[in-house]
Amino acid sequence: MNTDFPANLHGIIPPVVTPLTPDFQVDEPSLRRVIKHLLDGGVHGLFLLGSTSEVVFMDAPQRREVLRIAVDEVAGRVPLLAGVIDPTTDRVIAHARDARDAGVDGLVVTAPFYARTSQTEIVEHFRAVHEAVGLPIMAYDIPVCVQVKLERPTLRQMRREGLIVGLKDSSGDDTNFRLLARECADDPEFRMFTGSELMVDTAFMVGAHGCVPGLGNVDPAAYVALYDAAQREDWREARQIQERLIRLFAVALQGTPRTSAGASGVGGFKAAMRLMNLITHHHMNRPNLPLNDQEMERVRAILEAEGLMVHA
Amino acid sequence: MNTDFPANLHGIIPPVVTPLTPDFQVDEPSLRRVIKHLLDGGVHGLFLLGSTSEVVFMDAPQRREVLRIAVDEVAGRVPLLAGVIDPTTDRVIAHARDARDAGVDGLVVTAPFYARTSQTEIVEHFRAVHEAVGLPIMAYDIPVCVQVKLERPTLRQMRREGLIVGLKDSSGDDTNFRLLARECADDPEFRMFTGSELMVDTAFMVGAHGCVPGLGNVDPAAYVALYDAAQREDWREARQIQERLIRLFAVALQGTPRTSAGASGVGGFKAAMRLMNLITHHHMNRPNLPLNDQEMERVRAILEAEGLMVHA
Amino acid sequence: MNTDFPANLHGIIPPVVTPLTPDFQVDEPSLRRVIKHLLDGGVHGLFLLGSTSEVVFMDAPQRREVLRIAVDEVAGRVPLLAGVIDPTTDRVIAHARDARDAGVDGLVVTAPFYARTSQTEIVEHFRAVHEAVGLPIMAYDIPVCVQVKLERPTLRQMRREGLIVGLKDSSGDDTNFRLLARECADDPEFRMFTGSELMVDTAFMVGAHGCVPGLGNVDPAAYVALYDAAQREDWREARQIQERLIRLFAVALQGTPRTSAGASGVGGFKAAMRLMNLITHHHMNRPNLPLNDQEMERVRAILEAEGLMVHA
Amino acid sequence: MNTDFPANLHGIIPPVVTPLTPDFQVDEPSLRRVIKHLLDGGVHGLFLLGSTSEVVFMDAPQRREVLRIAVDEVAGRVPLLAGVIDPTTDRVIAHARDARDAGVDGLVVTAPFYARTSQTEIVEHFRAVHEAVGLPIMAYDIPVCVQVKLERPTLRQMRREGLIVGLKDSSGDDTNFRLLARECADDPEFRMFTGSELMVDTAFMVGAHGCVPGLGNVDPAAYVALYDAAQREDWREARQIQERLIRLFAVALQGTPRTSAGASGVGGFKAAMRLMNLITHHHMNRPNLPLNDQEMERVRAILEAEGLMVHA
Repeated sequence: MNTDFPANLHGIIPPVVTPLTPDFQVDEPSLRRVIKHLLDGGVHGLFLLGSTSEVVFMDAPQRREVLRIAVDEVAGRVPLLAGVIDPTTDRVIAHARDARDAGVDGLVVTAPFYARTSQTEIVEHFRAVHEAVGLPIMAYDIPVCVQVKLERPTLRQMRREGLIVGLKDSSGDDTNFRLLARECADDPEFRMFTGSELMVDTAFMVGAHGCVPGLGNVDPAAYVALYDAAQREDWREARQIQERLIRLFAVALQGTPRTSAGASGVGGFKAAMRLMNLITHHHMNRPNLPLNDQEMERVRAILEAEGLMVHA
Repeated sequence: MNTDFPANLHGIIPPVVTPLTPDFQVDEPSLRRVIKHLLDGGVHGLFLLGSTSEVVFMDAPQRREVLRIAVDEVAGRVPLLAGVIDPTTDRVIAHARDARDAGVDGLVVTAPFYARTSQTEIVEHFRAVHEAVGLPIMAYDIPVCVQVKLERPTLRQMRREGLIVGLKDSSGDDTNFRLLARECADDPEFRMFTGSELMVDTAFMVGAHGCVPGLGNVDPAAYVALYDAAQREDWREARQIQERLIRLFAVALQGTPRTSAGASGVGGFKAAMRLMNLITHHHMNRPNLPLNDQEMERVRAILEAEGLMVHA
Repeated sequence: MNTDFPANLHGIIPPVVTPLTPDFQVDEPSLRRVIKHLLDGGVHGLFLLGSTSEVVFMDAPQRREVLRIAVDEVAGRVPLLAGVIDPTTDRVIAHARDARDAGVDGLVVTAPFYARTSQTEIVEHFRAVHEAVGLPIMAYDIPVCVQVKLERPTLRQMRREGLIVGLKDSSGDDTNFRLLARECADDPEFRMFTGSELMVDTAFMVGAHGCVPGLGNVDPAAYVALYDAAQREDWREARQIQERLIRLFAVALQGTPRTSAGASGVGGFKAAMRLMNLITHHHMNRPNLPLNDQEMERVRAILEAEGLMVHA
Repeated sequence: MNTDFPANLHGIIPPVVTPLTPDFQVDEPSLRRVIKHLLDGGVHGLFLLGSTSEVVFMDAPQRREVLRIAVDEVAGRVPLLAGVIDPTTDRVIAHARDARDAGVDGLVVTAPFYARTSQTEIVEHFRAVHEAVGLPIMAYDIPVCVQVKLERPTLRQMRREGLIVGLKDSSGDDTNFRLLARECADDPEFRMFTGSELMVDTAFMVGAHGCVPGLGNVDPAAYVALYDAAQREDWREARQIQERLIRLFAVALQGTPRTSAGASGVGGFKAAMRLMNLITHHHMNRPNLPLNDQEMERVRAILEAEGLMVHA
């Protein structure tokens, strides 16, 4: 593992999908195959139990199971981050203790949700988790799910107080991300990751240290190549890879009005991964509807066009 | 208990606050005092584990504890509804089984949250809970917390399919509530409750069967009197009571920017209830900040003005 | 005319639709028929050049033409209010001077739009219009069109400074309307009108002095009867009339995704009025699409069901 | 002028601020100085009567005056685009005819506003303007002002039908901009401009042909240098210039809650330009509040830090 964690956390850290058995339990062989696929692709870390992992669909035993498998499978080769995502502080702390006991390297924490929370209370939330568990914490800004923005002054206060080591930004507000990167320019150990799949080259150009792409489950090596190109400041190459990944992202856009964004998005990644023989089943947890046969065919066509279907 | 449940569910069914001990456990003596206070006030039912009860802050054992105490204390005198509120379907089902085993009469279910869900998937969510547990289900429309509206066609479909027995509407969209009441006029067993504290007289006028007022924790008898006046179509009296309750609602508005809506609102109810010697401590679960001394004094002044402070 | 204007402004004051000729000019004979229809229905005032009148589609000469016709046709029998609606202060003042010169009794003013404006700047806006023209001003709260709420403290400040005589509330926030009515209870000359068509009985119950219903163009007498019932506190009668008007409001809901809310709403009123032979053409200004034949037939069926189609 | 207009429209095309006299008329000498300043800075075109120009505050004669001065001052050296921004179709057409008669090269058209409009009606709006005037039209996507997004399918339909020649994107949705750029990759004559001031280097990297930066009024040469660096694919240089321009953008962020975004933003540009002796007065149209002395001092400090204050 990275010997300078978390000060040097960087690169491609995909949010690992959680393959399921037909009765909605963690499909261990499939999860191990996914992790091997990601490590073979050269990723720099793994983020278990994120939104893409369907974390909020899982109870505590299922979450522990995912972490047990991941810690065992990774065996210290890359840093392991665990999302500890639930509505409120003490429930998050309970997950955080489980994650620590499972042996992960760091935690990913969102603002509280369902109950609305002030920016002051958000700081209290992170402080309580930090004090209870002590592992390095990445703040996870995802207003589309939690309805509140981690504002720049809030993030800077939490950094000053030593509560967080970095940010995963899934807000889609690229301008704000850049402004924060500038404000933290004198603090290079504050690690900034974008959650975007489609604006990764530009995120690297404006100062991101890494990326947490859901689509990285499907093609991790391409995101790693994009990262490498960005490190070389070969922006032409970076853009070319990004453009191909935008085409590939269409696998996550095959849903219809009956399906939600999640069922189209994560459901699309899972569909692709099943077609690539990485996982055995492509359904998500309830109530998300799985892609139907017609939608699966469209996913297959996209994979074939991008050279990701392996034929025996 | 009401012998015609749920077809005749009606009246004032407060969402019961959850008093806490200093270490954030359920304060059983205080909770029993609150329930006695509500039953003495003449309420027609109790709603445990709602938003006002801080349900999303509680883990499964704490939720079971609340239900155990409530079922014991109420002893069948009024219907008991239990919120089974968590982000996703199978976690809701787990809570629903606990609630059924505890002996409640019905469940209150929101749309899934954190993960975004289509209206079709929302129907699947309610269907799964219904099939797993079988207790009568009230749909709980609270977009401010779950980010999605239970649309009228969705509610009507769920009613047609027998998945729900009524609605608790905390959307604040009074026009939509009225339109739904009209659409359900030929289905009097579909029971419509408003979650408003401030528009209760008008909700009754447009067809509500009942009300779930958080402020009912502080002054249940006044809401019962309002309900009775509405039943007599004595709208002048109903309005007069409502106007006083609007003044009293100021206890929930004493927070400052440092506190969230919840910390001001539920925190204000708890502050009032502590000053009325109903509960021992007024703090909420983390990360909600409690009202400070100055805010408590303002709450005390409101209670005194409305004749709710008892002096030895 | 009301001899105690504006202190006693009250009742049903419809926003008068603007009938158009095929080349998008004001159709004077139709407009005169509409005004007669409204006065025959017993309305207590007229609001020309509101949103329902398509005011923002009209240039200054067209607006002056509407006011010339209305002042002439009404001949002082009821108060005439004129909307002076355009994005910014000095353009509003120009319209306000035209309206004053045309002889209207009062103005209706929104917050500025397109350019975003602070609450302080909104007060400056109303102050400038007030100082430039001197006519009584109703504040028009319509955030769905102008993107900013006239907040209660802003309205109270403007009232204290003598800038406004009342409010037309088209915000749909009935709770806020009631809270403002309470705050102004000691200022009975501050006149509060709801812009709702569907919650008029309840608006009267919580303190509204009047209503500005677009649907009043179609059936003014029914709204007048609703007002009269409310004045007698005959809420059963008021509600019964309101329920019928909700059914009739379906004329404004026959559009499809190709049509906007305006094209369905105002377009639906115009369609009904053409079928009732009140106006000659039912199209709106560009780019609003007119209802097609199938939609017109649905409007006709609604009118027939509600007894509003006159057959020779 | 560019001999291949509009197929080759490109580069830095600032939205020209409109300097005002104390009585809110167009300050011709100041406007001429601003235009000279911009042309001296090397800009590739000028956009008169945009949001930054306070267009919606101006009546038709004031707008004609601005265009008269600009056409005269520019004398054909660069393309001149004119915003024709008002709420509805026929009013926009009236401005468009004035602009054509004044001799501009192209028009900039937003979706209708105040009245809400469907995507179908938006196409009708652009079609009507196109048919009435015939000048090349840039679509202007600015949902923060008009409340509706020009969706990608709408833009592509308008392009297919020959209604528009390009896009000015002020939506802040950089991902959507990139996806549109990809979709239009086989149509290089469709010209894509970003309205961002802060993400210009990345916009060029993902395919923008140009930029319309309000801050370009203050430092046009820097944006031209940024464009040139991007053309050379010297992204390190482009980013360095962009970072300095982000620091300079602080002139637009000195307002307080009393001032709106416009009064802080455009007001900040004007404040800077007055301090640089480009314009004589820095106030905006009513009701926007001008920066006060303390705020002006902060603007001055920023200009000095960035080397833009000229001392005699």
